[in-house]
Amino acid sequence: MILGSFAEGRWHRPAGGGAPLYDASTGEVVAECSSDGLDFGAMAAFAREKGGPALRSKTFHERALMVKEIAQLLNEHKDEFYDLSYKTGATKADTWVDVDGGISTLFVYSSKGRRELPNDYVLVDGDVERLSRGGSFLGQHVMVPLQGVAVHINAFNFPVWGMLEKLAPTLIAGVPAIVKPASATAYLTEAVVKRIIEADILPEGALQLICGGTGDLLDHMTCQDVVSFTGSADTAAKLSSHPVLRRENTSFIAETDSLNASILGPDVSPDSEEFELFVKEVAREMTVKAGQKCTAIRRAIVPAAQLDAVAAALKERLQKITVGDPRSEGVRMGALASRSQRDEVIQRIGELATECDIILDGRNAFDPSEPGAFVAPTLMVCHDPLKKELVHAVEAFGPVSTLMPYGDFDEAIALANKGHGSLVSSLFTRDPETARKALLGIGAYHGRLYVVDRTSAGEATGHGSPLPHMKHGGPGRAGGGEELGGIRGVTHYMQRVAVQGSPDVLTAVTHRWVPGSTEADCKPHPFRKNFAEIQIGDTIHTAPRTVTMEDIEHFANFTGDTFYAHMDEEAAAANPFFGKRVAHGYLMLSFAAGLFVDPDPGPVLANYGLNSLSFMQPLFPGDSMKVRLTCKEKVERIGSDYGEVRWDVEITNQDGDICATYELLTLNAQPGTY
Amino acid sequence: MILGSFAEGRWHRPAGGGAPLYDASTGEVVAECSSDGLDFGAMAAFAREKGGPALRSKTFHERALMVKEIAQLLNEHKDEFYDLSYKTGATKADTWVDVDGGISTLFVYSSKGRRELPNDYVLVDGDVERLSRGGSFLGQHVMVPLQGVAVHINAFNFPVWGMLEKLAPTLIAGVPAIVKPASATAYLTEAVVKRIIEADILPEGALQLICGGTGDLLDHMTCQDVVSFTGSADTAAKLSSHPVLRRENTSFIAETDSLNASILGPDVSPDSEEFELFVKEVAREMTVKAGQKCTAIRRAIVPAAQLDAVAAALKERLQKITVGDPRSEGVRMGALASRSQRDEVIQRIGELATECDIILDGRNAFDPSEPGAFVAPTLMVCHDPLKKELVHAVEAFGPVSTLMPYGDFDEAIALANKGHGSLVSSLFTRDPETARKALLGIGAYHGRLYVVDRTSAGEATGHGSPLPHMKHGGPGRAGGGEELGGIRGVTHYMQRVAVQGSPDVLTAVTHRWVPGSTEADCKPHPFRKNFAEIQIGDTIHTAPRTVTMEDIEHFANFTGDTFYAHMDEEAAAANPFFGKRVAHGYLMLSFAAGLFVDPDPGPVLANYGLNSLSFMQPLFPGDSMKVRLTCKEKVERIGSDYGEVRWDVEITNQDGDICATYELLTLNAQPGTY
Repeated sequence: MILGSFAEGRWHRPAGGGAPLYDASTGEVVAECSSDGLDFGAMAAFAREKGGPALRSKTFHERALMVKEIAQLLNEHKDEFYDLSYKTGATKADTWVDVDGGISTLFVYSSKGRRELPNDYVLVDGDVERLSRGGSFLGQHVMVPLQGVAVHINAFNFPVWGMLEKLAPTLIAGVPAIVKPASATAYLTEAVVKRIIEADILPEGALQLICGGTGDLLDHMTCQDVVSFTGSADTAAKLSSHPVLRRENTSFIAETDSLNASILGPDVSPDSEEFELFVKEVAREMTVKAGQKCTAIRRAIVPAAQLDAVAAALKERLQKITVGDPRSEGVRMGALASRSQRDEVIQRIGELATECDIILDGRNAFDPSEPGAFVAPTLMVCHDPLKKELVHAVEAFGPVSTLMPYGDFDEAIALANKGHGSLVSSLFTRDPETARKALLGIGAYHGRLYVVDRTSAGEATGHGSPLPHMKHGGPGRAGGGEELGGIRGVTHYMQRVAVQGSPDVLTAVTHRWVPGSTEADCKPHPFRKNFAEIQIGDTIHTAPRTVTMEDIEHFANFTGDTFYAHMDEEAAAANPFFGKRVAHGYLMLSFAAGLFVDPDPGPVLANYGLNSLSFMQPLFPGDSMKVRLTCKEKVERIGSDYGEVRWDVEITNQDGDICATYELLTLNAQPGTY
Repeated sequence: MILGSFAEGRWHRPAGGGAPLYDASTGEVVAECSSDGLDFGAMAAFAREKGGPALRSKTFHERALMVKEIAQLLNEHKDEFYDLSYKTGATKADTWVDVDGGISTLFVYSSKGRRELPNDYVLVDGDVERLSRGGSFLGQHVMVPLQGVAVHINAFNFPVWGMLEKLAPTLIAGVPAIVKPASATAYLTEAVVKRIIEADILPEGALQLICGGTGDLLDHMTCQDVVSFTGSADTAAKLSSHPVLRRENTSFIAETDSLNASILGPDVSPDSEEFELFVKEVAREMTVKAGQKCTAIRRAIVPAAQLDAVAAALKERLQKITVGDPRSEGVRMGALASRSQRDEVIQRIGELATECDIILDGRNAFDPSEPGAFVAPTLMVCHDPLKKELVHAVEAFGPVSTLMPYGDFDEAIALANKGHGSLVSSLFTRDPETARKALLGIGAYHGRLYVVDRTSAGEATGHGSPLPHMKHGGPGRAGGGEELGGIRGVTHYMQRVAVQGSPDVLTAVTHRWVPGSTEADCKPHPFRKNFAEIQIGDTIHTAPRTVTMEDIEHFANFTGDTFYAHMDEEAAAANPFFGKRVAHGYLMLSFAAGLFVDPDPGPVLANYGLNSLSFMQPLFPGDSMKVRLTCKEKVERIGSDYGEVRWDVEITNQDGDICATYELLTLNAQPGTY
């Protein structure tokens, strides 16, 4: 069977001549792979002309809901993907990381997309910048979707997760994708794409697939495209040097394998829980996916005094792990993805052995003439590691790790940083101050710092697990890119624009009312309008209310808040901000609500909170306060009976001085629901 | 005189053989320039080993104060810089943009650095991510300074601003810099650096200067370094392809000249204010710095019906501008920076003329045999511009612009985007919805969108003026980089790290108390402690207070907030969130203050606000509420008598359910000041 590519809205299958792909354990041919005959320039144009406009015509929430639909769909077909996954050499546990982990990434992104992004087309980034004294000229950063195509070039080790973790943020951003899986395991990716395409969830042109080489695709890149690559550092450097990417300044995101480190804290002794947690984690990272993870622990950095104890405990644990065909009973570690991977890992172990002692050698655990791509766990020790180079630069992309001792903690920091940049480093310590020291020492060289102690161990997700919430990617050897990290990951497919203009311009552009913009005189009272009726800019100005000394004393005695600034003229006069007795801030807030609230049942269901309350200047006894309340922003939830409305509130005194500003949050019913 | 380079802590001046630099108007030799004999690798190492650690030993605020000191210093020597600036061909107004604009950028960054960054070493980025159900495993993105060196390669047109706009964010980030000005105007940069160095404000190694070529400097780059370049697109592509930058994934920021557009809105007629504003702005952008600005308007896109009116008005205005030696009376536009620039501009005008009609030709306004590098304003018209290519790609970096007509607004959008990415586009319109349409249509191709109407025109800072608050840089032809943009600009010199761990780990790492962390039992009452004494994690739990129906009715009548959910059992029962009558949210807040407040004069000076108040579930009549108050964060202001303290507040009912959470803000006196 030759794998299909999905290009320009239909499946293409070359007549033959594809490269054979093998079952990692049995060596049987699973499929053939070739992209012969594809028109890569036409694919890019198809994405830009069909997929892009279709995606951009939807809001963030609508796109996030499509991502959820895909997740639900794939969940229903998991068993089919599991069966294919075993052929890649993955165990059931490995498969769970790839398939279920990928689907869960879609769910998380869909949910974050709807919770943290507006149901709109523009993402507001940061606060309004006041660029002029009078306030007639303001600035606001916003983000809009790129108008090109995202090219995703993925690695062989996670054929499902690898695709989905890039696809979720891309689609939510509103950008179409062309996915190119690594050939060795492309049959699993193809199966997933088939399901997505046949379910017809995505608009035409939003998703295309290339099984096989990418031909001249990169020659067609522009400033509106993104190339996101996962794989080896060498390939990343080659791709990113492509003259078209350089000339067009096409965004290039790389995530490459790196020499990730795990540090056993100086405070941890063999009898403490953190010691055992460390040994377990190193063993786990060596054996999950047979060590074929960009994030695996390659360098285990331990206090010199603990080196022997760690080595012994780790060796014992690794020796117990059964390696074999993942479909066989009792197997806990599967095969490498291919025999060429196996050969490469064995060669790299040899290179590392010129600087290290091999204390557990997995190279010859299997007969090399047999068809499976097996290597057993291999553990090394590097003495005097600050003086070595290969051990910090050569990666055996399999179940291989090296122990290295350190003297003081500065030495541990220097060792961790000798990897020239990595995706993740971990630290096992009971002392939070050691974690702070580690961050300041090694943070600049690592994309993620995973700290484990007995408190978090029960729920911690693992050194090697990128989570959709946290960024994935690191400097230098790790590729210098960033993926995931919640909504940050979505913004990698968007352009930041600094918009400058009058308050009305910013309000129109962001759909957030900016102080100084036109106020719409609101009739009836805005609290009598349902969510659909309320308009951004709807405003009421309340009647004034005088706040008396009696009010203040009454409020103080009633609430118990008898702070001297409200109660004691002399003490208040000594306060640097007040000069005399003042009204409570919460008195102002409460009176403000009394002034603008509409008491009868209606579409406003609840006040659910308040943001950015700032007391600007005091209100004194005898002063008169009044309130301006303006609809600032509407936060819609598709399918919900109500939406959130954010109100800009300003309390002023009789001289028009601003005493307090805040954002009031209400829940407002949709038409016909209350 | 040969210009000096400041390397490894001392000034170097080659014995001779430097390239001569000329006064742009008179052709006299101003200085010679050569970097012969510098050891570039040693300079990079000096920055990393001396400057970096010294800067990182200071907090953000301490570094921001150094930047302020530099700004104050340069302000005192402005006249000296002005005199040199005239030699570059700049008029007084141009000089103001360069010198005063540069100094003002330092002031803005210093002020933002102290207002928006913590007085600490780590910058918290975004919110805590809850990564586990039980809350024992959390995530937080933080940023830490890179441990390398920033190499700033600047353009000739802004010898002062160009250096300072890169230097301010770099130093505040805690990263040392090596500055390389373009040779043509390096004498002015050198004068500024001399003043900074002799004032001894910066630690050794924080600032080095290369006058002349950069030799093999880029061969020494690592993953901890940043190369930030301003100049031509060709040079940017060449630099960014450097094999060491590719291999090390060194951060490369480019800001290149681009074919910036300005659009006259479809709603604007010749008799409206926006029409005149547009004509003025195009003329200004063509002539300020003799049009040698990366952000200048090269393409003026106007409704076809207005083309003749715009052309006539613009021509008239441009013809009135006196061009000459900026030191001469009445001159409003000076020389290009050098004769080679002049020759290049004249050549480019010739290329553009193959697609355009020249309606004002400034090429022959001056005798080419005279020594000054003068070109007078040159205006062209391009008919049928959607079918032309050169006019969207070839830039004459001088007082040159092209008018192009559009039919409907979609055509204007297509034209603006044909520049393949630019730093800034502007739009003159009275209709805010046109601004929104423009953002959605052209935003992805432009770094900045500058919208002008009569409201903002009086205070607007200009199409071509990058402000420190807003990002500077655009996609594609504009280099694909970002600079400035407030604190964003500082983060370009930092590494983002995803920290994962227990609540105590996050608290220690961020110096922000995270719920779930250890609470320090606080004695005395935390409001009796001054700013220095208060510790993050200091906590009190108040006594409980029962809230009665009488309290609710009393509060309602007193404040006027008689919302039905508090007053009417039947109506409250129909509300989807309450089920029965509930206490006011502000009643809870007010009673909470009554429970935790310490009434007597003491170090707590004021409650100045509140953030992120969230009502989680209602408090019913008869329920009993109590409060936990924990010191979350201390925000210190160096030199101030008080600091800000942020408190994590949680109100719970008798069952321990959380009714409300918020962040309370107080101002607390420093020791000995109250």
